[in-house]
Amino acid sequence: MKACGEKHFTAGLFVGLRRVTKGREKGRKTMIIIVKPDAREERVHDLIHWIESQNLRTHISAGDYSTIIGVIGDTTKLDEELISGLDIVDGVKRVSEPFKSANRKFHPQDSVVQVGEGKALVGHGGFALIAGPCSVESEEQIISVAKSVKAAGATMLRGGAFKPRTSPYDFQGLKADGIELLLEAKRETGLPIVTEIMNANHLPLFEEVDVIQVGARNMQNFELLKELGRTQKPILIKRGLANTIKELLMSAEYIMAGGNENIILCERGVRTFETATRNTLDLSAVPVLHELTHLPVIVDPSHATGVARYVKPMAMAAAACGADGLIIEVHNDPPHALCDGAQSLRPEQFEDVARAVRVIRAAAAEVNGSGSANPLQ
Amino acid sequence: MKACGEKHFTAGLFVGLRRVTKGREKGRKTMIIIVKPDAREERVHDLIHWIESQNLRTHISAGDYSTIIGVIGDTTKLDEELISGLDIVDGVKRVSEPFKSANRKFHPQDSVVQVGEGKALVGHGGFALIAGPCSVESEEQIISVAKSVKAAGATMLRGGAFKPRTSPYDFQGLKADGIELLLEAKRETGLPIVTEIMNANHLPLFEEVDVIQVGARNMQNFELLKELGRTQKPILIKRGLANTIKELLMSAEYIMAGGNENIILCERGVRTFETATRNTLDLSAVPVLHELTHLPVIVDPSHATGVARYVKPMAMAAAACGADGLIIEVHNDPPHALCDGAQSLRPEQFEDVARAVRVIRAAAAEVNGSGSANPLQ
Amino acid sequence: MKACGEKHFTAGLFVGLRRVTKGREKGRKTMIIIVKPDAREERVHDLIHWIESQNLRTHISAGDYSTIIGVIGDTTKLDEELISGLDIVDGVKRVSEPFKSANRKFHPQDSVVQVGEGKALVGHGGFALIAGPCSVESEEQIISVAKSVKAAGATMLRGGAFKPRTSPYDFQGLKADGIELLLEAKRETGLPIVTEIMNANHLPLFEEVDVIQVGARNMQNFELLKELGRTQKPILIKRGLANTIKELLMSAEYIMAGGNENIILCERGVRTFETATRNTLDLSAVPVLHELTHLPVIVDPSHATGVARYVKPMAMAAAACGADGLIIEVHNDPPHALCDGAQSLRPEQFEDVARAVRVIRAAAAEVNGSGSANPLQ
Amino acid sequence: MKACGEKHFTAGLFVGLRRVTKGREKGRKTMIIIVKPDAREERVHDLIHWIESQNLRTHISAGDYSTIIGVIGDTTKLDEELISGLDIVDGVKRVSEPFKSANRKFHPQDSVVQVGEGKALVGHGGFALIAGPCSVESEEQIISVAKSVKAAGATMLRGGAFKPRTSPYDFQGLKADGIELLLEAKRETGLPIVTEIMNANHLPLFEEVDVIQVGARNMQNFELLKELGRTQKPILIKRGLANTIKELLMSAEYIMAGGNENIILCERGVRTFETATRNTLDLSAVPVLHELTHLPVIVDPSHATGVARYVKPMAMAAAACGADGLIIEVHNDPPHALCDGAQSLRPEQFEDVARAVRVIRAAAAEVNGSGSANPLQ
Repeated sequence: MKACGEKHFTAGLFVGLRRVTKGREKGRKTMIIIVKPDAREERVHDLIHWIESQNLRTHISAGDYSTIIGVIGDTTKLDEELISGLDIVDGVKRVSEPFKSANRKFHPQDSVVQVGEGKALVGHGGFALIAGPCSVESEEQIISVAKSVKAAGATMLRGGAFKPRTSPYDFQGLKADGIELLLEAKRETGLPIVTEIMNANHLPLFEEVDVIQVGARNMQNFELLKELGRTQKPILIKRGLANTIKELLMSAEYIMAGGNENIILCERGVRTFETATRNTLDLSAVPVLHELTHLPVIVDPSHATGVARYVKPMAMAAAACGADGLIIEVHNDPPHALCDGAQSLRPEQFEDVARAVRVIRAAAAEVNGSGSANPLQ
Repeated sequence: MKACGEKHFTAGLFVGLRRVTKGREKGRKTMIIIVKPDAREERVHDLIHWIESQNLRTHISAGDYSTIIGVIGDTTKLDEELISGLDIVDGVKRVSEPFKSANRKFHPQDSVVQVGEGKALVGHGGFALIAGPCSVESEEQIISVAKSVKAAGATMLRGGAFKPRTSPYDFQGLKADGIELLLEAKRETGLPIVTEIMNANHLPLFEEVDVIQVGARNMQNFELLKELGRTQKPILIKRGLANTIKELLMSAEYIMAGGNENIILCERGVRTFETATRNTLDLSAVPVLHELTHLPVIVDPSHATGVARYVKPMAMAAAACGADGLIIEVHNDPPHALCDGAQSLRPEQFEDVARAVRVIRAAAAEVNGSGSANPLQ
Repeated sequence: MKACGEKHFTAGLFVGLRRVTKGREKGRKTMIIIVKPDAREERVHDLIHWIESQNLRTHISAGDYSTIIGVIGDTTKLDEELISGLDIVDGVKRVSEPFKSANRKFHPQDSVVQVGEGKALVGHGGFALIAGPCSVESEEQIISVAKSVKAAGATMLRGGAFKPRTSPYDFQGLKADGIELLLEAKRETGLPIVTEIMNANHLPLFEEVDVIQVGARNMQNFELLKELGRTQKPILIKRGLANTIKELLMSAEYIMAGGNENIILCERGVRTFETATRNTLDLSAVPVLHELTHLPVIVDPSHATGVARYVKPMAMAAAACGADGLIIEVHNDPPHALCDGAQSLRPEQFEDVARAVRVIRAAAAEVNGSGSANPLQ
Repeated sequence: MKACGEKHFTAGLFVGLRRVTKGREKGRKTMIIIVKPDAREERVHDLIHWIESQNLRTHISAGDYSTIIGVIGDTTKLDEELISGLDIVDGVKRVSEPFKSANRKFHPQDSVVQVGEGKALVGHGGFALIAGPCSVESEEQIISVAKSVKAAGATMLRGGAFKPRTSPYDFQGLKADGIELLLEAKRETGLPIVTEIMNANHLPLFEEVDVIQVGARNMQNFELLKELGRTQKPILIKRGLANTIKELLMSAEYIMAGGNENIILCERGVRTFETATRNTLDLSAVPVLHELTHLPVIVDPSHATGVARYVKPMAMAAAACGADGLIIEVHNDPPHALCDGAQSLRPEQFEDVARAVRVIRAAAAEVNGSGSANPLQ
């Protein structure tokens, strides 16, 4: 701490900042803490002392109605909520974001995730069209769906082997057998496969899976994220129902901090008071994410709306606002599968959606030209 | 009430319904009330008695774990929440919606709202491109903006004369003078004008206004809605920050019940926990509304996102999913207007957005063909 | 603007602040704007110029990763959202709140609102127990309810004469006749009366009403609030379904800015995804409001939960956390009124709740001692 | 399916239901599906066929504006959302809840969870007062806190060994060493200990832990829940930030379905638009849960509000509305721990809260008498 009486204050907080951040000190973080006017001086000193004990430097400036503490150093370790809840603190403002590896500031170019030895590219113009059934049910079903979605233009096959279900009494998926069937469909069609993991202990079963999906309910299952960070598999991570865009990026950061940078983000709706759709699809997340991160962003209109007849318009909208891909539920047609999903499309409906998305993407490319997804460029 | 012992139950509830709804009895509503298994019989009788005292008929069926009351007649008058909160009631389900005039079931064709003696048509292919400044500030400003947005393809001019502001200390608009300036801009450019009303007492000032806007905060100002129902002006009504799609339709119904059917609905974002955008734009509302109602639906990407650089991608998305128009904030350029709005576009930016929207609309038309906005047709 | 090169920076932002805010300049506001690292210099200058054109002073400090603009003067007029949405701005932080008259900082003592010539006091230990039917239906009903709630300990009678209803087809209240009946009940029992206003034009009808209620849907009907600011009537203002605690205070500020300081705030639940209760009662708002403002805060457990059997536990909870009153729906007993409200209590149930609340209040007084509601004192 | 022509309809749906549910067939579930008026007959038949293929029976009744399918049998396996999203379906209503073991209908008496060989009882009058630091930091810290919270009346000690942190760069807890230190504190004070698990693989480390906590972010980590169902340890499960009360019960059901019925539910706030508190504490969940389930319900005012000075009023409120316990963050006092948590109390503050809670609980007992937490009894 630098003592800052009115007279001895010769170099302001921010001049200090400028000096410190000169040169090679890229990535330095700063936080500004606004102290309450009536805070007791010793409590403020305790706070400053505590911050400095964490290898950070501080600059203090005092006014009649507020004292402001500038924090210099790597403040990614400081818990913003904790500090803002202190009774002597009026507010906290980070000058930079707490995520690094995912941050576009430090990596301006779009990342491109390579899937299945380069069979599919996602990001910077590479568009992922992922389709398949909610659950893998049988060899016949998955191969039939795989063939039809491939014919319609899908670039990857999805299918649930392990299923997260709200009720313990619901069907929990075919598990290892389901993965076997997906691999069979991959051999048959050449489509890379995407399937969800629910338990890090199952990782050995995912060895030949091309993209491992982390579902919305596990977005903050940090133990799972850390394990996935130790692989080099492409990870498709879905936004949690009540998670902010920045929390999604922090979860990506967990995986990246482990060394795995092959990450595809997925917007799939947030929970609100509206009941006309299952969740509320937050398409604004697409340009917001493209601005904050270099990672590709895809959209899941099937789970977001929960209603098959809204999938086409929302898929078109996602393509129009720059999504790097779509993940769509498709079931095969025999009458008994009628209820595969209210949100599932039949193959011929998917073909129609895929065509519509191509037309909209061509129009969007005409508008934007090719190049970075970053709306600021 | 028909007494329904196990033995004497010869005609089920729904046979009853079929008879009742035969023939010309269009629009008949039905509600199903599920009674708790342990409800005392006399309380159930009181409930049935009360329902019947409102000119409705009931059919009762009893099981061991639940008794079900079917209600026959015009149940638009029954308060669903009230009944579902009764301690003897387990649940309530309407068989049909409580809105009539706005309901597509009874009016399958898209409505087309005529604005400014037919200068602009909204709905069924008629696209409203409404642009202008947040606030009307001066004659020079509004005429300059009007000319440039017209040149870029806008079909109407918007501008705030009466401004709803969270703080009493904020600028409240030029009021009557603002409307005068809008009319001046209309004479100058021929563009129909759209401006917000906050008080029914101001209606005489709106005589030459082409479209009267009801803001999100007044969506359930029922006294205002009733007054607007007595006019024949086109009304642009915005969805409230925490209002469901069905509540928006009920507010439209207030205006229509008064005899004014010239209504344009506007999605402009709902309030959620996400802070990266001002509100969360709920684009799924576009296909949902197109299914539920024949009224045209436009989108306001400026207020929804609160950030100018997200307006273009969200305008493109809105066009792709079938919106019947857009309302966009545009300010004129002199440096002093820098802060006209973080969400405002400069005229050349608006021109770019307008062009992008045209390209996306052409692509969407190629996909959908022309015709009804109803995704079910 | 003071030019701040690294060398010429001799007096920091906050020393500046201290000087400025010395002495009699109480109430001065400050705002801190964090500019993006890559913002073009001319755009930053435009922003500074614009701020200064509004009679505010600025101090600028620049670092490599951020420039910070400190704003000095009455920033209540600056729109925080607008500035934070500018593409050159990374964040905005107010050093003080935009509300003044309602702010406890400038008025540390609890306010006490006098109702009905001092018959009832609300705040600083004065507890409002307001009870009555949702709607006034008949003379017999309202007088019967008034007598029984008075006997149970109610200090005011509530009853709806003008009813805000989601559907235009629902009963809209007895209107002027309803107010007449409330006044009759007041004459009969001596209880001050509370009833809702929906239209400023109706104010003449409210001349003998003791407390005018502003409903949740009208919390941001600013035209109505301004009119109420011109009266000296006690105003009970309910929090809107999607409004923050600070927006509630800004709405109170609208009334107070007009000269009427007799305001009672009411927490009545916010809208969330949870459906087990009609709304989600936010009881934390009670201590938060007691900290931010000197105005009394009451709670409406009837509308918040929408279920009569939850009213008692939530009324007890509200009393325990320091609420200055309760507003509870009570209907009279004849069988035909069964459905007066799922959330309504019968008179004997209300008596039970009133007794429970007294017991809890006595316990809370034993815990807290008497004195200010401010949890910080 | 039973064909139901108008004439041949001799036994109505609900007579059927009654027969079926007669006798020993307790727990039978029923669902009602309302079909759209314009649904094609073959699609309706497909739906009925599919339902019946799942070992359920159906009864159909047709009206002009709606056909209704009653489903008989154990419908816990039917996915309500899936069916309600089908394009031929207007609505779905369960007649009974999809949870069984946790359901108060089938287990009217309050459950009492025994902790630490009966040292602490939770439920039916047994009150859990759980206190301790956010993170276990050192032997000195945890033993000092344990002694002081025990002296203040705590019945269990909490402390985080494995910490779920939004950022991978934050301190992740002392892990196994942290559990060792908790056990040391248990030996020293006799207090049973509560600590969070994040990974089922860590279960062996929890052998001597008295209560295993499932955090909000893991409420729907179904793989973890299943593993915990195989133990007989008391489980404290916290409600997720965006999870409904019924989803919390379904997660409890996951554990109970495995055979472990020792479950304590915890309300800790949901995520809303309000920013004055970290989350919005939903205290109405206490009476709602007491009505729906026999399991004990405790409240966490520390995490819900995120602010130490709001913990006392909200703890008092929780006690007043019938909570079966509280879990509160307490840190020890040395200056360096200043920032242990903005939401943490110092030991003397906790003593004050504990005393206040005792006073309120005594008052609530005076009001309610002793006995079941069920507000309906």
